[in-house]
Amino acid sequence: MARRELGPAALTVAQAIEREVRGIDRFVVGCSGGPDSLALALGAKWAARRSGATASVVIVDHQLQDGSHEVAQRTRDLLADRGMDACVRRVEVDPNDPDGPEAAARTARRVALVDVAGVAPILLGHTLDDQAEQVLLSLARGSGATSLAGIRPRAGQFWHPLLGVRRAQTVQACQEWGVEPWHDPHNSDPRFLRSRVRTEVMPVLEDVLGPGVADSLARSATLLAGEDAIVTAVAAQWARDHEVTDDVLPGLRGVEPGLARRVVKNWLPESAMVHVDAVLGLLDGPGGAGVDIPGGRVEARRGTLYLTRRV
Amino acid sequence: MARRELGPAALTVAQAIEREVRGIDRFVVGCSGGPDSLALALGAKWAARRSGATASVVIVDHQLQDGSHEVAQRTRDLLADRGMDACVRRVEVDPNDPDGPEAAARTARRVALVDVAGVAPILLGHTLDDQAEQVLLSLARGSGATSLAGIRPRAGQFWHPLLGVRRAQTVQACQEWGVEPWHDPHNSDPRFLRSRVRTEVMPVLEDVLGPGVADSLARSATLLAGEDAIVTAVAAQWARDHEVTDDVLPGLRGVEPGLARRVVKNWLPESAMVHVDAVLGLLDGPGGAGVDIPGGRVEARRGTLYLTRRV
Repeated sequence: MARRELGPAALTVAQAIEREVRGIDRFVVGCSGGPDSLALALGAKWAARRSGATASVVIVDHQLQDGSHEVAQRTRDLLADRGMDACVRRVEVDPNDPDGPEAAARTARRVALVDVAGVAPILLGHTLDDQAEQVLLSLARGSGATSLAGIRPRAGQFWHPLLGVRRAQTVQACQEWGVEPWHDPHNSDPRFLRSRVRTEVMPVLEDVLGPGVADSLARSATLLAGEDAIVTAVAAQWARDHEVTDDVLPGLRGVEPGLARRVVKNWLPESAMVHVDAVLGLLDGPGGAGVDIPGGRVEARRGTLYLTRRV
Repeated sequence: MARRELGPAALTVAQAIEREVRGIDRFVVGCSGGPDSLALALGAKWAARRSGATASVVIVDHQLQDGSHEVAQRTRDLLADRGMDACVRRVEVDPNDPDGPEAAARTARRVALVDVAGVAPILLGHTLDDQAEQVLLSLARGSGATSLAGIRPRAGQFWHPLLGVRRAQTVQACQEWGVEPWHDPHNSDPRFLRSRVRTEVMPVLEDVLGPGVADSLARSATLLAGEDAIVTAVAAQWARDHEVTDDVLPGLRGVEPGLARRVVKNWLPESAMVHVDAVLGLLDGPGGAGVDIPGGRVEARRGTLYLTRRV
């Protein structure tokens, strides 16, 4: 119960969680058995006890790797040894999903977590290193602030209390708690872009730009999240002021490019930036031209954009 | 005179310049003799002839490297051979300047260019690769959109028409024009952070994230510049609405962090983000506390910030 029971890294993890769950009755922790989410689960137990909340752990077995049942079982046993109840949820992931197996696994995982949590917050173990990698991956796509801001501390029901904690601290916290985490072979599999960012890009960045580069990337993400919120609010207000409907977007000609892009992006949420720019290009061209976008077609007439959906 | 006179890379450079100087009577080109600014100077000649403008070239001799006089002289002769007038301006740079020799050289260069240009636009040869490096350097400092947006196409009097052109294209353009550019040894000197980003970081990023990564970084910069402009406008409007003066900033308590940061940053332009955050922290603390910032001290009383300048 006392703080002195915890080692320094475990305390860092536990306090980061406690700050987030203060005043919450009940929350759910998603756990893969890896060091970050295992530390999250054990830290959550400490934080829940201090705050009087009920915490439960959900271990999602994606059944994508050999031995995934055993990993889930072992993680559940390990948490049970520490007095923490955990349930295992098996999900079916289509490895041939058109969005790719990683996105399909993510969706299946989220559905399973929400199914257990109901409306309670769901804590996930993303660390500062995940955030830094996310910023680099967004940069590689040529993104604006919305995407470069990376993982938000609270993304709806999904909370990320460890975004200020280094991955190495979660590893050390597990050592301090005396638990042996699972090491997902996908995390160092060079077939995954994120693994290569982790194992090849980050070490060079740290060598050239200094060991604080992950912190700096995470700091940029935080600053951009704040700025993105302002742009989002301005674009939403603009859309209200101009009576934008689902199908008609008037008044965009001559609007500064940053705002115009965001307004169109909000109007066409399924569209990539390349479509957004093509749609904006319509406003400069002769009337009557059109651009095909996912799920429909946009045409411009006298400075107003019209969306026709495909059925 | 005809487009067919130019090779493909030279044409890319020349047309990028022509788009920028259309309708301009007179402009000045800054040239170091390196491939980017040499291509800029030769492309400027083509663009000026087509647009009817007067273009003149200024070669700034920073006198920081052995042989700088010869480099400047050789560049002037080379441009004269191509029918382009260029003047050499020697500047004195203090290698012990407190801001560092690079910043001191930049300031001296800009003063010399403005001295020749008067109010005319000054074109500089920064390329898409410089932009990509700039974004990475800003990330390494943990910056928000203002800094991550990198080099603006037009930064006051200084215009950057080649931000969409790759460095390799300027090298090829020089070959097509039959001129041999100077290669600044500083550009590959590992004592300079930018050189290491160029020679060590970018190749790894291209290997892992794909050859389009420089384009993506530049694209992010463009998107962020547009978003930054919105945030800048919102913060300025907020300051007007709240009657912010040079010394008094009221009404910031409870304002969302992204906007609050920008308002304080604008209020204290000489301050780094670490000072801005410390000043914002005052609003959450007990009244009467203060933070020392460059050139003064900020105190908070009843939710209002007061700046006292040191004399």
